[in-house]
Amino acid sequence: MAERRLQFHPPTSVESYPFAHRLRTRFAETDAMGIVHHGAYLTYLEAARVEYLRALGYPYERVRDEGIDFSVIEVAVRYQVPLRFDEEVDVAVRVASAKGATFQMEYLLLVAGEVRADAATVHAAVTHGGRPTRPPAWIRSILAEGPPR
Amino acid sequence: MAERRLQFHPPTSVESYPFAHRLRTRFAETDAMGIVHHGAYLTYLEAARVEYLRALGYPYERVRDEGIDFSVIEVAVRYQVPLRFDEEVDVAVRVASAKGATFQMEYLLLVAGEVRADAATVHAAVTHGGRPTRPPAWIRSILAEGPPR
Amino acid sequence: MAERRLQFHPPTSVESYPFAHRLRTRFAETDAMGIVHHGAYLTYLEAARVEYLRALGYPYERVRDEGIDFSVIEVAVRYQVPLRFDEEVDVAVRVASAKGATFQMEYLLLVAGEVRADAATVHAAVTHGGRPTRPPAWIRSILAEGPPR
Amino acid sequence: MAERRLQFHPPTSVESYPFAHRLRTRFAETDAMGIVHHGAYLTYLEAARVEYLRALGYPYERVRDEGIDFSVIEVAVRYQVPLRFDEEVDVAVRVASAKGATFQMEYLLLVAGEVRADAATVHAAVTHGGRPTRPPAWIRSILAEGPPR
Repeated sequence: MAERRLQFHPPTSVESYPFAHRLRTRFAETDAMGIVHHGAYLTYLEAARVEYLRALGYPYERVRDEGIDFSVIEVAVRYQVPLRFDEEVDVAVRVASAKGATFQMEYLLLVAGEVRADAATVHAAVTHGGRPTRPPAWIRSILAEGPPR
Repeated sequence: MAERRLQFHPPTSVESYPFAHRLRTRFAETDAMGIVHHGAYLTYLEAARVEYLRALGYPYERVRDEGIDFSVIEVAVRYQVPLRFDEEVDVAVRVASAKGATFQMEYLLLVAGEVRADAATVHAAVTHGGRPTRPPAWIRSILAEGPPR
Repeated sequence: MAERRLQFHPPTSVESYPFAHRLRTRFAETDAMGIVHHGAYLTYLEAARVEYLRALGYPYERVRDEGIDFSVIEVAVRYQVPLRFDEEVDVAVRVASAKGATFQMEYLLLVAGEVRADAATVHAAVTHGGRPTRPPAWIRSILAEGPPR
Repeated sequence: MAERRLQFHPPTSVESYPFAHRLRTRFAETDAMGIVHHGAYLTYLEAARVEYLRALGYPYERVRDEGIDFSVIEVAVRYQVPLRFDEEVDVAVRVASAKGATFQMEYLLLVAGEVRADAATVHAAVTHGGRPTRPPAWIRSILAEGPPR
């Protein structure tokens, strides 16, 4: 039977990412294998997205004030070297692509420069009522020109 | 810029799965968008894995008694229709493939027969010391013959 | 310096509780000490509250349909014997008292009859706008007469 | 029926605390009432404890290297004003008392100087084997002299 593995390819060099958010792993996020539980990584990606948007001048409230929510429609994570309690993690993040109502973000998680995991998320821009809508212009402009910083 | 989407294809019919675990979403798992947070799905997949192994005669302790742990090395989830608080979810699960030290599981999440999400996880069999090892024979026999029930 | 310990006294016999909800601890809820993380207990209490209300004929939606939310204003837990992964826990729950806009619930957590923890929560009945309101009559009637079962 | 409320009295002025840890609430920690879920507060207390110990010169690894773990044996939280997504929270923390093998810590959670919650936790010093042991001298010296800074 053929092996099936995920096909997604975030850049493996941190220089390819315009932004990184540093956080420290919490004890509550560990599990009985003595490492950070794989589910906690999704909250790390989310925290990095929020901080990246803030750095771009779009804190969450401003996004919502424009009548937009970003729902998560796909997530993929590749766990390479386990994270452990009390480690400082740099979560590098970038907008990778956009098409129609959706856009994809990519991530690299590193500790002291060592890659521990990479990830991708796909988001849909939706109205507060939940209807798909075009991603806002500032997301499309990040894609066209790179981040405005 | 090309759209990038995940390529994984769990069967979309619940009949293709040998086992399903029913759970009820918890209020703690919801978020401020009023739906179940996307991160909670990983704990649902894990609960379904554990119950499936138990149904196969391999509760967690027995796996560990054989000197084995299953680490999670990849996760992918496609969110189709949001789960809401207090819904009863059927998490259908199957072993999809195995190769060398890794094996893949696939999932379908349904509420009252409606598909809400699908997912795949890739696992490595490791010794308690964390070294890769061949998946146990009973996993390989599930793959070769289908589940022993 | 005087020792300070919490003063709350849920009944220590499961017979004093009108209802118990059984759940199984999840791997995601464990921590690197190899036991269930102390924070996970709050989600167990909440799940037991929800199931108790359902058993009384008040599933969450019906509570909300009456224009009421129950906010948590105090929580206390006493951890006696650690819970471990994959254990089946009986969370016994009762309404202990009510006064004005608040009411208190008490809990006993047991595995195979052995007490592992006890707990108390205090709740305020609030309108959807967040204003304090009198607990609904059915909560007050549980207090006056005991549970209607 | 008498009202029962928790009796614990952390100082209500932030000046009474030798240390505060600032964190930002995460979206994953919110719930469908649009506020931070009450369970998430326990992880905030834990993060503040870890950072306080680090500031005292006792990062977690050093504690464990001394053969000690701190298990949580009691938790109490009083929720006063809800925390919301993306708020910056100062978690003030102090060692309040110690007796025999246990010690108590107290907390005040503030946003921009406004108290949102207070809390207390009781801990037992245990060996890695889980047997009660006296709290280490440095905890007892904090109690006797105040924090060494």
